[in-house]
Parts: sequence; structure tokens; C-alpha cells
Amino acid sequence: MGTVMNPNDPGLRSFVDVAADSHFPIQNLPFGVFSMEAEPRPRVGVAIGEWVLDLAVLEREGLLTAGDSPVFDGRSLNRFMTRGREVWRRVRADVSGLLRHDNPRLRDDRALRERALVPVAGVRLHLPVEIGGYTDFYSSREHATNVGSMFRDPANALLPNWLHLPVGYNGRASSVVVSGTPIRRPNGQTKPPGAELPAFGPSRKLDFELETAFIIGEGNPLGEPIPVGDAERHIFGMVLMNDWSARDIQQWEYVPLGPFNAKSFGTSISPWVVTLDALEPFRVAGPAQEPEPLPYLRHGGGAAALDIRLEVGLRPAGGDGVTVVCRTNFRHLYWSMAQQLAHHTVSGCDTQAGDLMGSGTISGHEADSFGSLLELTWNGRDPLVLAGGARRTFLEDGDEVIMTGWCQGIGYRVGFGEVAGRVLPTLEVG
Amino acid sequence: MGTVMNPNDPGLRSFVDVAADSHFPIQNLPFGVFSMEAEPRPRVGVAIGEWVLDLAVLEREGLLTAGDSPVFDGRSLNRFMTRGREVWRRVRADVSGLLRHDNPRLRDDRALRERALVPVAGVRLHLPVEIGGYTDFYSSREHATNVGSMFRDPANALLPNWLHLPVGYNGRASSVVVSGTPIRRPNGQTKPPGAELPAFGPSRKLDFELETAFIIGEGNPLGEPIPVGDAERHIFGMVLMNDWSARDIQQWEYVPLGPFNAKSFGTSISPWVVTLDALEPFRVAGPAQEPEPLPYLRHGGGAAALDIRLEVGLRPAGGDGVTVVCRTNFRHLYWSMAQQLAHHTVSGCDTQAGDLMGSGTISGHEADSFGSLLELTWNGRDPLVLAGGARRTFLEDGDEVIMTGWCQGIGYRVGFGEVAGRVLPTLEVG
Repeated sequence: MGTVMNPNDPGLRSFVDVAADSHFPIQNLPFGVFSMEAEPRPRVGVAIGEWVLDLAVLEREGLLTAGDSPVFDGRSLNRFMTRGREVWRRVRADVSGLLRHDNPRLRDDRALRERALVPVAGVRLHLPVEIGGYTDFYSSREHATNVGSMFRDPANALLPNWLHLPVGYNGRASSVVVSGTPIRRPNGQTKPPGAELPAFGPSRKLDFELETAFIIGEGNPLGEPIPVGDAERHIFGMVLMNDWSARDIQQWEYVPLGPFNAKSFGTSISPWVVTLDALEPFRVAGPAQEPEPLPYLRHGGGAAALDIRLEVGLRPAGGDGVTVVCRTNFRHLYWSMAQQLAHHTVSGCDTQAGDLMGSGTISGHEADSFGSLLELTWNGRDPLVLAGGARRTFLEDGDEVIMTGWCQGIGYRVGFGEVAGRVLPTLEVG
Repeated sequence: MGTVMNPNDPGLRSFVDVAADSHFPIQNLPFGVFSMEAEPRPRVGVAIGEWVLDLAVLEREGLLTAGDSPVFDGRSLNRFMTRGREVWRRVRADVSGLLRHDNPRLRDDRALRERALVPVAGVRLHLPVEIGGYTDFYSSREHATNVGSMFRDPANALLPNWLHLPVGYNGRASSVVVSGTPIRRPNGQTKPPGAELPAFGPSRKLDFELETAFIIGEGNPLGEPIPVGDAERHIFGMVLMNDWSARDIQQWEYVPLGPFNAKSFGTSISPWVVTLDALEPFRVAGPAQEPEPLPYLRHGGGAAALDIRLEVGLRPAGGDGVTVVCRTNFRHLYWSMAQQLAHHTVSGCDTQAGDLMGSGTISGHEADSFGSLLELTWNGRDPLVLAGGARRTFLEDGDEVIMTGWCQGIGYRVGFGEVAGRVLPTLEVG
């Protein structure tokens, strides 16, 4: 085995073949939970190229440890995450070492390798964490401006608090599902413009929202806020998220307490949690913040944003082609994850391992960088024309939405894979 | 042992002495979780008068069973609740039978009785359930009208959707605490009227909200709504709840996504879960609903409200007297629990055992029946004068809020005990 290297070093190579455009080279090593038909008990794994490394096997064999007791033979990352950042870092470094091209330990032990490395094509990926609390922020200035322009007043699109605090709300944790889970179109109350009374039925304005989300690894106790400078230490990693939204239900229900049924029918996340450590090389400065935030939201300097390229693909029902309908970047977000978490806890609110915190829809400046159909079609006014000729204002039954995201290194990518979901028709309510 | 009787029969008596004004006669039998200094592992108990019946002991001794495997030797009611309503009912009937004055089984087995019946004065009461999701509704017409009058427009105090659907939002589950837990005054952003910029500091408008909450016993899978006529079958029981609120933080943050930090610093619930079965004799008709709700919210007839008397007491810092500042009744709520749950799940949203669903602040018509200081002092305009002469607009450090509630039978009460909490000063943020 060679010398210990920074697991983010672009020069690292694995004995596992990894394509140049793979999201999962040795520089990434995201954590997830998987099972196989032959071994249906979910356990923790790491993605490497087209393979999954079974950490429960390595832990049993004594090649990997995360402390006094086993943490990887279980149905979520929560136990592992509560061990704290030093352990996350050491485990990632140890996994990196075991996968290096010049380390014979796993590479040359064929029996072990065949048990520990399984093709991703043969596994089922599960929700990677048990989510106690799900919070969604609203931190894209472009998105908030677009929505405010459409539903309120283009001249005063941003509400007065928006530039002073990262607006957020509590979402419904129980209905967060892993990529690939179909999403059933919700029934609900809506009141179309001009109608005298509300009506009940399937949503006619079903939409996606392109988001990322971070996952708390180490929480804070009730009454002990997390200072902005410490916030990243509490974040284990990030996923892609599709915050499916029923716009017609939302518009009728949301005053004065915020979205409820319009978002509670399903929220999809990608299966692999990319650690904040793996994203470190892709730090960039975020947007300038003017007016300057209050002291509890001020970063101590440094680059608080990340250069993550994001895309949304839409495969219309009956078609076999995917049209990319949005290209944007995480770096556009006005409020950083550290600011979001500092604000979330400044009241004394506690957080726990597994809490999921969404960015809010990520839109850029250009019309093809908007992160929702609401914005891309300007509330249905300007239909999208997809490859093959299909037109869409909002989602139709059978449509599939596929979001992806990655950081581009020189010759490699640190990526998230994808979060995908297909729309099922509403069930009749008896 | 006598014949099997309806556990709600007013004629039932226990061999345990119970005062006439006790909240916990044999007709109640609420479930909670407790521990003792000598046996610090939390387990499930039932309140009877001034005693706690240890169900884990009875289960071990074979006097009580809730199915194939033990459920009472654990730190929450969740395992028991997932067994379903038939089991809840049978266990309550069995406990009732064991506590009857004419059943010698427990009464005359002194050794067992001393292990199974412990004085409540010597136990610590814990949060009774593990709360996956916490939802808060806004179902008091009087409260919504008061708030709308103060903050928006007295002529159009109710927003257009309010009479058509039970407005609700997702709260923060992690900071729900059991009665007796002190509540720390939160820091946060506020923008006083007339100020040019927001400021940071301790909330100056800390308030209580008098609520009840119901607890889901048997959930529903994602995509399978609960019809209004089936809703009560999913509800295990009810507690009292104080939804502590920082009004100045709330007013600045709540547009457009609802309350967030203004409520996330702590929500208190009473320790004993009163089963819906025990409340059955106190059913009454709720308010007339005009306009008639959409079909998915229509009850099949029958009395959907409950006659639960509610009071809020305030013990000012430094004083030793409690002044009752609010007297109201759960029966005033416009939307029933069944309607709330049917609406919550009509989108397909799933629920799970332990989910907590608050009523929203319960206010009556009269000025002394309002369930918050915001309403009682009309946003600080009309201070309350307490016994002893102390004046209050909002809560001061050291103040204690004590809420109680009970149903009055003839010669007995089926009650909730209390939910109490004292305000601690804000901690300095480093």
C-alpha cells in the first residue's frame, strides 16, 4: 500500500475501473444504503464507478471500523453519522485506501472482493437516512423573484424579510422517498381564478422543483444554537431533491401558514449522500450579500458556495427521449447552507442526525435555468416544446422527471447520480 | 372478578382510592411513559388517581398482553399503538378489569401490587410517544378571526380558504417536550413597526397557545388517504399542548411560507395520553359548518366534537399564586379531528404511529376565553392584571404557564392532568 493521500487528490486511481464521466470515482465515495435479492437486509455501501462497496462486509472482516460497535449493517446511515465528523473523515480515507490501485489488500483477495464489491445494476437502493425532520428553505433569489412576480407584484417581488434571513419552513418528512419511487398525482382542493367555490379533484398543475438538500450528521441539543462558523461541521453531506409540488393546491391553501398538502404527497431524493468533504475542492464564492446580514449570519470569510452543475430532464409519457429543460448551478443560491443551519437553530431549535434540509428551488438568471415548470412555462403561459414535439405546461401522467448534478474536476467528476420519478395517475377516492 | 363491564361505565370503582376531582379515575386510564430513580429505564404506565400502574410488570407477569411480543417495556407508546385499535381497546378493558374494586387478582396480591402500583409523586414522566411528524392546524374560528383582525383587516379577518378547509402546517417535531421542561426564551430576528432594519435579540413577545393535540395510533401508507368516516379509528388519543410562540419573530418571518423559528424553540405536551375511547361519553355536536364542506370533509352524521373544559393558569415570576387567565372549551373548534386527518391525508400523505396533530389555539367567543396572550391583551394593548397585582402583556422570564383540561361526568372527571412550563431567560450567543 502506498502512502496516505488526501482522498480528494485528483491523482488517485482505483483498481476498480471508473469511466471519466462517472459520478463516482475514488475522489467521491458517497454513502448509501442497498440490498440485493439474495441478501435482502439493507446495509451501508459506498459507490465506486458501476459498483457498490459493501461496508458491512468490510466491517465484519475487520478492514473498516467506525468505533466501538458496528454501524454499517443497518438500514440507514444514522448510526454512522452520529459518530461525528472525525469518524466520517477517517472512514472515507480508509475506504479510499482500500480502493486504491496500489493497495493489494482488497484488490488481490478475490473471495473477499467478490463479496464486498457488487455491481450496482444488481442492487436495490434505499432511502439512505431515517429523516426525523425535513426543512425546506427558499434561498434562490431568482426563484423567489419569479414566484413573487407571478403571484404578487413584479415591482415588489421579494418580500421585505427575504434579503435579511433565509426563509424556510417545515416540510413533511414521512413522504420523502428514494429516487425511482413513482409519484402519485394528488387529489386536493383548488379554486381556479374566477370560480366562486373551491372544487375537489386531481391537481392539474403538478410540478417539479429542482433542489439540493443537506443532511445533518451531528445534531445540536435543544437550546444550544449552532454558530454560523461551526455549521458545516454538523453537515454530513448532500443529495439531489425533487420537491414535487401541486401548484393549484398550493395557491389556494398556502395563506397564511404556508404550503401543506401541495407538497406532502412525495419528495424524492437521490440515493447516494455525497459528503461535504468530497465537495471541498469545488468551493466557490457565493453571491454578494447586500444588505450585509446580521452578525449571526455572517461568514468568517471563505467560499461558502459550491460549483455544482445541475440539470433537469423530462421524458414525456409515451416518448422514449429525454429533453433537458433546465441547466443551472448550485452556486447561484443566495443563502449558504451554513447560514441556513445557523438561522434554523438560532431560536434554540435542536437538530438530529438524519434531518434533511432543502435548498429551495434553484433557478438561475436565464429563462432556461429555472428550476420548476411554474417558472419555465411562466405558470402555463408559455408551453415547453420537447424533443419529439410533445408540449408541456405542467406534468402529465406517465411523465418522468430526471434530475442530475455534478462537480467537474479536471478529468473526473464528483457527482450525485440522479433523482428520478415518474408520475402515476390519481387513484379514485372511495 | 365480576362481569365484564364497559370501561366507561360511570358506576365502575377501583380498589385504588381516587378523589372525586381527580383527572384519573378508573373511567379514564390514560397511557404514559415513566421511570423511577431506582428503575431508570422508561416504560409504559397507566394513571389511576395518584398512582401509576406499571404495565411492563403486568406484561411480564402474564396479566396483560398486547399480542405476540412485549410492547410495554420501552421508552414510548409507539410499539403498543401500532398493534391497532382492537388491541388498544382490549388492553384498556383488561386494565380496567384488573383495577376494579371487586377483582382480587391484583388487589389481594400485595407483593405484585407493590411492584405494579407506584405513587406518581415518585416517578418521572417522559414524552409518551416518539413523534415522527408534528402537524399543527388552525381550526378555531374565533382565534383565526382575532389574529386576522389584528394583523390584517377586521372586515375580512378570515382568509378565503378558511371556511373550506382545515388550514394546517408542518411544525418542528424535534423540539416537542414533556410538561415540566423549562422553555428558554428564543433569540431571533424581529423588525418592530417603524424600524428601518431588522434587529437580533431575545423575543419580547413570548406567548403561549392553548391547544389540544391528537396522536396517530395506526397510520396510513403513502398514496392511501384516510376517508373522513374512518379517521377516528386511526387516532389513539389526545393530549394538552402549549405551542409556545414568539410573536415578534413570527410577524417578521412568516410570509410567505408560514411560522418557523417563532415556534421551533419548544412545544410542550401533557404526559398522559387520554384515549379517544375514554372521551367517547363526552361527545357533543360541533359548530354548524356553513358553507357545507366538500364531500371528502363531510361527516356521516353524529357528534364530532368533545366537551373538554380547558383552562390556562399563569404564575408570574416571583409570585406564588396562579391566576386563571383563560377558560374555554374544545367543543368550540370549527373543524373536527376527523376532518383534519382526512384533509391531511387526502393528498396521499402518509402518517405513522406517534404523529402529533395540534388543534391550533382554542379560543372561545368571550374575551376571557381566548387561548393566547396575543388575543387576551390584544397584542399588548390591554395588559392583564394578575392576582397580586402583577401586570402582563407577554410572558416574562420566570413566568410559569399551566394548562389543564377535563371532561366533567356526573361525580367524576376524565381529565388530562396538566401541561406546565416555566420561561428561562435567553442564553447569550457566543
